[in-house]
Amino acid sequence: MNFKEKNNIYVNMIEERLQNIIPEVNEYCLDIKKAMSYSLLAGGKRLRPLLALAVAEMLDKPFDEVINFGCAIEMIHTYSLIHDDLPAMDNDDYRRGKPTNHKVFGEAMAILAGDGLLNMAYEIMINDAVESKSIDKMRAAGIVAKYAGSLGMVGGQVIDLQSEGKTIESDRLKTMHRLKTGALIKAPVEAAAVICGADKKEFELLSGYAANLGLAFQIKDDILDIEGTVENMGKNPGNDSSCNKSTYVTMYGLEESKKLLETVTQEGISCLEAFGNNAQFLKELALSLVVRDR
Amino acid sequence: MNFKEKNNIYVNMIEERLQNIIPEVNEYCLDIKKAMSYSLLAGGKRLRPLLALAVAEMLDKPFDEVINFGCAIEMIHTYSLIHDDLPAMDNDDYRRGKPTNHKVFGEAMAILAGDGLLNMAYEIMINDAVESKSIDKMRAAGIVAKYAGSLGMVGGQVIDLQSEGKTIESDRLKTMHRLKTGALIKAPVEAAAVICGADKKEFELLSGYAANLGLAFQIKDDILDIEGTVENMGKNPGNDSSCNKSTYVTMYGLEESKKLLETVTQEGISCLEAFGNNAQFLKELALSLVVRDR
Repeated sequence: MNFKEKNNIYVNMIEERLQNIIPEVNEYCLDIKKAMSYSLLAGGKRLRPLLALAVAEMLDKPFDEVINFGCAIEMIHTYSLIHDDLPAMDNDDYRRGKPTNHKVFGEAMAILAGDGLLNMAYEIMINDAVESKSIDKMRAAGIVAKYAGSLGMVGGQVIDLQSEGKTIESDRLKTMHRLKTGALIKAPVEAAAVICGADKKEFELLSGYAANLGLAFQIKDDILDIEGTVENMGKNPGNDSSCNKSTYVTMYGLEESKKLLETVTQEGISCLEAFGNNAQFLKELALSLVVRDR
Repeated sequence: MNFKEKNNIYVNMIEERLQNIIPEVNEYCLDIKKAMSYSLLAGGKRLRPLLALAVAEMLDKPFDEVINFGCAIEMIHTYSLIHDDLPAMDNDDYRRGKPTNHKVFGEAMAILAGDGLLNMAYEIMINDAVESKSIDKMRAAGIVAKYAGSLGMVGGQVIDLQSEGKTIESDRLKTMHRLKTGALIKAPVEAAAVICGADKKEFELLSGYAANLGLAFQIKDDILDIEGTVENMGKNPGNDSSCNKSTYVTMYGLEESKKLLETVTQEGISCLEAFGNNAQFLKELALSLVVRDR
């Protein structure tokens, strides 16, 4: 099976789980389920749960051990997009080719849909840990919480917020992306590694892979912000640069950013050498992100 | 020691823990810690952590077992107030006698401060469970998640949102309050009961106490919305009634609501009979909520 076929099978497994993950709600607040589902089921690359499945496969553990955690992290990712798109934040009208959550359901409901997804993500991870009486799964949930909160993604969003319209120094840009994008890419890799019983060495290698992948992902995002098309992206490219946001491209230029993307991707892949052929999917996943057009 | 003295000691313990609970953040996003602390440390009755401590005391377990969970639930309560006060939601300018979070830090930061507090609440509970390798604490975190999310408080906020300006039926009003207010009052009681090893009978009695307490709390809130003063409340009373929100008072009238408050409080207290004198504090806590002026 080639990479694309395997990728499609994994994504289908994830989509199926996501379809059934939001429980019924009280009859008086059916709209919250609609609003949560609207954004959660809007497609996307499903990179975060894909990473969790790929780590499990590499470490020869069943997908069932990690798929709930992968989906929970996808819910955290989705809540952050809903809140990020709000008028008070980035004020975006389109996301993944569809009107943003607040455009459809109104601002108040969008805030609550985000809150609902975040709570549910934790509920899913916690219940999974309780049902399997697994301290490792509890530890994995703690890793996700660390990367999602004010020391992780939320902190990165704050740096982003406070950097708008300013020229920022390289260290601040890197910190912003490490927290805003990198943290939630490390989360599924490290959580899956812990759940699948990776030893200290394996954990560190996987963590290094994920750190480089997150950085590469952001550099590619910044390149797409210049080179992407609205058809492929499902949103208006050029939003960051036109908002005077600092990006890798505004800081290093387009050509230098493309070189950096190659270097960082290769560094990520080199972390996987110790895993031999078992790491094939994770390696190809990293390469696929370099050539993505959305 | 009388009730008031004991209450003060408990509240001081809680305030001290809350003072130290938000960790340092990255140097580039110090404002997120400021915004989170601003609302978390704005005082208040601290009812939810108080309940956790009181249950531990009654079941003869150390406060240290439950105080993190109590504080985590206070953080969830605080995040919900920050988001509730936003212009897109209730658009409130004052809370606990101080300008609301978005009035001080702006809307975007207030959204993120709420998100940060919610994430941190889970991080605290999960880390506590991991450190003590306690499946019971993990179960307790699952209870909190259930009551905080779209099947609990968030669901109640949605019913509230969709009921504005409408006359709603009694069953919808009760469901709204059971979810919006009641759920997060049940959470510390049930979580502490599980952590402290309550048996099935004890758990059900405590859960019954908390359900009645939550209902009484909301009825009293609706009475204060009519009878309270801005000095005591730290916010404008009359906000709900002037927004044409249905309340117990608009539905049953002031006198009938006061009778209902008495009845429900006594029903709550009667759930505690089996615990004898050990339940003294929880009983007096219920009575103190009837006569509160804020």
